[in-house]
Amino acid sequence: MRVNLDRVRELDLQDPLAIFKERFALPEGVLYLDGNSLGAQPLAARDAVAETLDQWRDELIKGWNQGWFDAPERLGNRLAPVLGAGEGEVIVTDNITLNIFKLLGYIIGQRDEGRGVVLSEGGNFPTDGYIAQGFSRFGGHEHRFLPEGAPLEAHLDGVDVVVLSQVNYRTGALRDMAAVTRQVHAHGAEIIWDLAHSAGALPVDLNGCGARYAVGCTYKYLNGGPGAPAFLYVQRDHQDGGWQPLSGWHGHAAPFDFEANYAPAGDITRFRTGTHSALTYRALEASLDMWQDVDLQALRTKSLAMSELFRDCLADLLESYGITDITPAAGERGSQVSLVDTENGFAIVQALIARGVIGDYREPGLMRFGFTPLYLSFEDVWQAAGHFREVLETGEYRESRFNVRGAVT
Amino acid sequence: MRVNLDRVRELDLQDPLAIFKERFALPEGVLYLDGNSLGAQPLAARDAVAETLDQWRDELIKGWNQGWFDAPERLGNRLAPVLGAGEGEVIVTDNITLNIFKLLGYIIGQRDEGRGVVLSEGGNFPTDGYIAQGFSRFGGHEHRFLPEGAPLEAHLDGVDVVVLSQVNYRTGALRDMAAVTRQVHAHGAEIIWDLAHSAGALPVDLNGCGARYAVGCTYKYLNGGPGAPAFLYVQRDHQDGGWQPLSGWHGHAAPFDFEANYAPAGDITRFRTGTHSALTYRALEASLDMWQDVDLQALRTKSLAMSELFRDCLADLLESYGITDITPAAGERGSQVSLVDTENGFAIVQALIARGVIGDYREPGLMRFGFTPLYLSFEDVWQAAGHFREVLETGEYRESRFNVRGAVT
Repeated sequence: MRVNLDRVRELDLQDPLAIFKERFALPEGVLYLDGNSLGAQPLAARDAVAETLDQWRDELIKGWNQGWFDAPERLGNRLAPVLGAGEGEVIVTDNITLNIFKLLGYIIGQRDEGRGVVLSEGGNFPTDGYIAQGFSRFGGHEHRFLPEGAPLEAHLDGVDVVVLSQVNYRTGALRDMAAVTRQVHAHGAEIIWDLAHSAGALPVDLNGCGARYAVGCTYKYLNGGPGAPAFLYVQRDHQDGGWQPLSGWHGHAAPFDFEANYAPAGDITRFRTGTHSALTYRALEASLDMWQDVDLQALRTKSLAMSELFRDCLADLLESYGITDITPAAGERGSQVSLVDTENGFAIVQALIARGVIGDYREPGLMRFGFTPLYLSFEDVWQAAGHFREVLETGEYRESRFNVRGAVT
Repeated sequence: MRVNLDRVRELDLQDPLAIFKERFALPEGVLYLDGNSLGAQPLAARDAVAETLDQWRDELIKGWNQGWFDAPERLGNRLAPVLGAGEGEVIVTDNITLNIFKLLGYIIGQRDEGRGVVLSEGGNFPTDGYIAQGFSRFGGHEHRFLPEGAPLEAHLDGVDVVVLSQVNYRTGALRDMAAVTRQVHAHGAEIIWDLAHSAGALPVDLNGCGARYAVGCTYKYLNGGPGAPAFLYVQRDHQDGGWQPLSGWHGHAAPFDFEANYAPAGDITRFRTGTHSALTYRALEASLDMWQDVDLQALRTKSLAMSELFRDCLADLLESYGITDITPAAGERGSQVSLVDTENGFAIVQALIARGVIGDYREPGLMRFGFTPLYLSFEDVWQAAGHFREVLETGEYRESRFNVRGAVT
């Protein structure tokens, strides 16, 4: 290993984010490089859930008037600074799939002359394409894929709406949000950004990039807990556009008037649908409280330094084992390292898991390692890389290569 | 008060469901007649949530392979017997609003010659109408209301799908599910039953009534917790109908193959969308475990006896205070008593709440009192009626009538 441990410990001593690690509940003996799939548990989440259980028990129905009902807006406002959005521009609700559907319907419903095409991204996380297909099939639109790696410019003719990820979930490649947004708008189309792998992974600047619409999840880098609700962003000047198709009572202009006819709320709350889980929102809120204290530039600096450290520790080794590092350059990636070994990738990840180093594997051959600056130290990264080296050099991955495959994002 | 306390205590001694009360966490000094809005907390839910928090902390991403991912199907199967449904016919997912949208799209997508009309119910809980309107507006259908109290027969021409509640949320009126289902099918239309106020309130017999489609929630009589997920039922012979419009990756035939194109699962799982909350599902599962032990006929018997006891205790009193009892007859109601006083109804409910008797109020003038046989005793009901009497006779409701109005279902 080429990297000196003393130097690594020095990085930890100088790390302004090191104070956050003690605010997480982390299992002993685990080096967790899968916070890009499910974030670790903030200590405060546990207390927050316990308090909400007390509230359900003691306050019963009154709990809805004690912070439960307006949690989607309140948490949206807590989240907004992390996304470069303003007050009233973000709401926490439902899941990414549903939120993309709402935005597609909302955007296309406003276009006087629809062109008929919804464009989503080949190689993106599939649910974005699945719901774009469901929406298109159902609404009489045409769905097309932007082929992976193809230039967007050549595929914008006739397009109403584009759905793109800011960070690709497989490679970690980071798009230039400002440039792509300008490009799409210049074609008279709209773009919905999926921030699943960028929110909490790096500073997102929705307002600064001129982005009008976005969605994302909170259970990865934002530590909201397994299946925590998603978010939806609409830039303020685009909030008076009428209905979204999933018109439920929580999105009504006056939900407690119980009027017969739907009338959408005049603000971001129109994107709510029905009753949400008080327990789940409180767990997320505890994490978002912590995120108020995070310096996002420091987060980015540490994220890139950690992923670079991991690569440096392995750089002398990968080629001789037939492993390709497809991680984009520092300015062009999110917060993950992506290594490809179509022959042994699965077995290597399994062998690492057996050692308590949790990464994940995607066919074909992709090993993903996520770097979460709030609860990983540089020494953790150094140790994880050391395990990787030992797994290769001892050949122990050969023992695990016949394990059954199966994983969850 | 005409009813003798000794006789009431005798009813409790003979009650086969009395054993369930100790399985709930109930606050001291509260008589809770609002389980039709938010059910009380099963003791087991607390432990289940704590275990799931441990699992998130210790197992992290592996939790998804340890019971989290398949919770929608597993809980659906736990719930099925309570609804008169079979294995594989029920799934727990999303909320009622979204589930109605899915079923509307699924049903209409199968009809070779759509007639163009979606009929929902005036006076039903408004979200059913709101989403029927959103669906219709978006899909180019016509939405109509069945006027409250109007005969369905006269409104079925041209209708593709009807959305009706089995139990009306305001009056508590119970529809004859078998007869109405036959009537709708005889017109070549389909019906989606909303079971929000019947699931867990009385024995529902979806299969026996020939019902093909239903939705409902689990946070009322089923005690799943605030904002617990909803359910969706499709009769087995109607599960091969293709896409539902909210096509997300959890509803894919092979969600972990990450294929580019959507292909719906061949079974009830096609109605899943995206990632759900592990915490919330475990809380509900703890309650559904308890429901496996409940004799639903005994539940119905006790429910009707309790609501009748409440009415008996007040029967001599209501007319002289200008209060109208609109509760349907025993065989024609769910598990609630509905009293109307347009002048003082709100004030009476507020005065009752001040005494720890929790009912709820809906404009105009409607006082609703829900009877949950698992955690209410006959003596609780007798005491609640006693408070009602005292609130009227002392006139203390006049003190509270200027309170600000506002409540949550």
